[in-house]
Amino acid sequence: MLPERHPRTPLSNEPGPHLEPRSEANSPVPLRDLMPALGNKLYFNFGGQGPLPSPSLAAISASFATIQELGPFSDAVWPYVNRTVSGLRQRLAAWFGVVPERVAFTENVTSGCVLPLWGLPWEPGDELLVGDAEHYGVVAALEELARRHQLRITSLAVADLTGDAAATAAAVSERLEAALSPRTRLVVLSHLLWNTGQTMPIAAVAAQLAGHARHPWLLVDAAQSLGSLPVAEAAAAADIYACTGHKWCCGPEGLGAVALSERLLEVSSPTLIGWRTLEHDGPGAGGYHRDARRFEVATSCTPLFAGLNQSLQLLEAEGDAHGRLAAIRKRSGQLWEGLQRMPGLHTLLEVPPPAGLVSFTMADAKGVPLDPAAVVKQLGDRGTWLRTLESPRCLRACTHLVSTADEVERLLTQLAELIQLSAG
Amino acid sequence: MLPERHPRTPLSNEPGPHLEPRSEANSPVPLRDLMPALGNKLYFNFGGQGPLPSPSLAAISASFATIQELGPFSDAVWPYVNRTVSGLRQRLAAWFGVVPERVAFTENVTSGCVLPLWGLPWEPGDELLVGDAEHYGVVAALEELARRHQLRITSLAVADLTGDAAATAAAVSERLEAALSPRTRLVVLSHLLWNTGQTMPIAAVAAQLAGHARHPWLLVDAAQSLGSLPVAEAAAAADIYACTGHKWCCGPEGLGAVALSERLLEVSSPTLIGWRTLEHDGPGAGGYHRDARRFEVATSCTPLFAGLNQSLQLLEAEGDAHGRLAAIRKRSGQLWEGLQRMPGLHTLLEVPPPAGLVSFTMADAKGVPLDPAAVVKQLGDRGTWLRTLESPRCLRACTHLVSTADEVERLLTQLAELIQLSAG
Repeated sequence: MLPERHPRTPLSNEPGPHLEPRSEANSPVPLRDLMPALGNKLYFNFGGQGPLPSPSLAAISASFATIQELGPFSDAVWPYVNRTVSGLRQRLAAWFGVVPERVAFTENVTSGCVLPLWGLPWEPGDELLVGDAEHYGVVAALEELARRHQLRITSLAVADLTGDAAATAAAVSERLEAALSPRTRLVVLSHLLWNTGQTMPIAAVAAQLAGHARHPWLLVDAAQSLGSLPVAEAAAAADIYACTGHKWCCGPEGLGAVALSERLLEVSSPTLIGWRTLEHDGPGAGGYHRDARRFEVATSCTPLFAGLNQSLQLLEAEGDAHGRLAAIRKRSGQLWEGLQRMPGLHTLLEVPPPAGLVSFTMADAKGVPLDPAAVVKQLGDRGTWLRTLESPRCLRACTHLVSTADEVERLLTQLAELIQLSAG
Repeated sequence: MLPERHPRTPLSNEPGPHLEPRSEANSPVPLRDLMPALGNKLYFNFGGQGPLPSPSLAAISASFATIQELGPFSDAVWPYVNRTVSGLRQRLAAWFGVVPERVAFTENVTSGCVLPLWGLPWEPGDELLVGDAEHYGVVAALEELARRHQLRITSLAVADLTGDAAATAAAVSERLEAALSPRTRLVVLSHLLWNTGQTMPIAAVAAQLAGHARHPWLLVDAAQSLGSLPVAEAAAAADIYACTGHKWCCGPEGLGAVALSERLLEVSSPTLIGWRTLEHDGPGAGGYHRDARRFEVATSCTPLFAGLNQSLQLLEAEGDAHGRLAAIRKRSGQLWEGLQRMPGLHTLLEVPPPAGLVSFTMADAKGVPLDPAAVVKQLGDRGTWLRTLESPRCLRACTHLVSTADEVERLLTQLAELIQLSAG
């Protein structure tokens, strides 16, 4: 049958050509030149939202047009819709290093983090151990979950870990062991902390939790990691690894994905349920999909899938995940080094950043802190965009693989000018 | 501060010009000619998905481009994003006949139906009285809600109401009174039944529930009504009135809205929580929005808001809600009348349809039922699209205000041909 609101989507395509248009994916045009957002400003907010390449916008528009040409609701359109959705699922599964059955699509990273939690078998008194550098939206969701199920939230200090990878991993392991209790049922950590820019040793944490008596679930907010770090090891190890396409992947806003572990899929029931949740797509006694699609809901915007797929192809054409991270770190390292040389500038990390996030504070010649919001405004007036963070109160600049050495130098020059201005 | 994932959106704009591009909204080009989907087929699946007008796709693309030009993440982009979101909220509030504070955006109609339910103060033994013509996705969600909270689901027969509005209203009132128990805590009805095409007297039901001891919540699935029926009276009367933009409104897929009552907003907690849920958009002890935004979550696709707003403007240019319904009914009435004259054709409704949904069964000259799926396929081979329904097993053809008399006649001719073929 045809469902009312959408066709059902199979998990995998038959082998063959995937999504068009892809012709520009291997274009000789540098990726940077395909991003109109970078043409009229100095952009350092990739961790807020990534620039959308023109071929990705073209893919979105073409997909809308194709759906209108074939449907929008007809037997002729479903093969196209299914190919679009399952093609992206397969591509993301490869990035995550998991089978497509473990990948669900969501509207945003928050939904990916939160929805799988509501169907877990909580018991009153269970403890949620939450890193102290998590996004406030996810924290608010955990607080509501705790309130309704009489759970207890405990905190794991990680925001103060500003050293190198080995020191960070050792500290996380030690603190985790100390913080875990017999009641701990869930651990929540970001893969790449949105405020300090530090990476968490997710695979090691997962292994440590597996050795713990109750084997707590591991929820990873991967908002900053997909498209920035190699994610396969962490995504395969976590129980919930939730991502968005509109930050480091440079896809459109409004589409995310989550990788789920097999043990979670076995015990977590869906909460927000619609036709996409159901194995039998019609009335009657059907159960939920056994795979990750049980956390998908109902109609979403298929053209966004075409856009994200195009963006991922463009990133793939730039190199593998390790190569792309090296390009990101080249510029974040350049920025971090430049900031070390400037009086009044203090980076949160004591070492060159493990990824593309560079957070710092500024003070004038007398050591008086500059207001981050005022700095963002003054830079914005010059066409340079970075952002403030509230906790810790600081500035954050991001570099992506499309960032240039010249852009970083110009940002450093502008920061120096602002400090000079504040002295005058 | 700047949020990580998006700017906060105020509820209302200052007076002034809203969204561009709007120039084509008052274009002399007939709306039908702005819909590429209608150019190469006979289309009768408006209840599945509406055709997207070219100006709406242009508005979506222009919005993506504007966001890239101004941001995508910068102080310069937030005013544009806020204007786009709040402009649509104001327009939909006017359609709903409620204040903007009662309107929340969702990804689809299912989310609008289901999310507000999970935060209501259920007690074990509470009863959910559910119409027997509800969409199976919503029914599945209610079953999960009932399972977790030990609620009881009871059924209200409405699928067999095939007469005129007065008879339907009388029967609903009588059956409702008989079905309500002291434990009834929620009543679930669609405004326009997706299978039979019958309308439910929502405002009268709301009034009847208000007189009941426990004043049960009223959840209305309005998937088929926004853009098809005048909705103001029903939307203002229901506790949850959940819609989508991609069916009768002819907007893009992936954006819906829900109108919520003040009493529901007072007692229902959000469940899927993100930065858009929170009154203070940052870390710290902020509560949820008191208004309907408490049911919004996190980043969604702003350009879709621009697209839906354009589609709604195009519909407004065709006449007011009553005028548009009259145009829809002219064609559905034509189709219904034509079907009455054909042997072997049996419409589910005994009277001309109150809106644009025309459901029917077919039998050959010997009275043997034709398989609806086979009919859909045969019509599809001719470039004519309608759909099957599983329960009751039948065909459904929809007419919108862009449907023409000639299209309806051609459909009738093709149906007659299929019956003749089956006889041969």
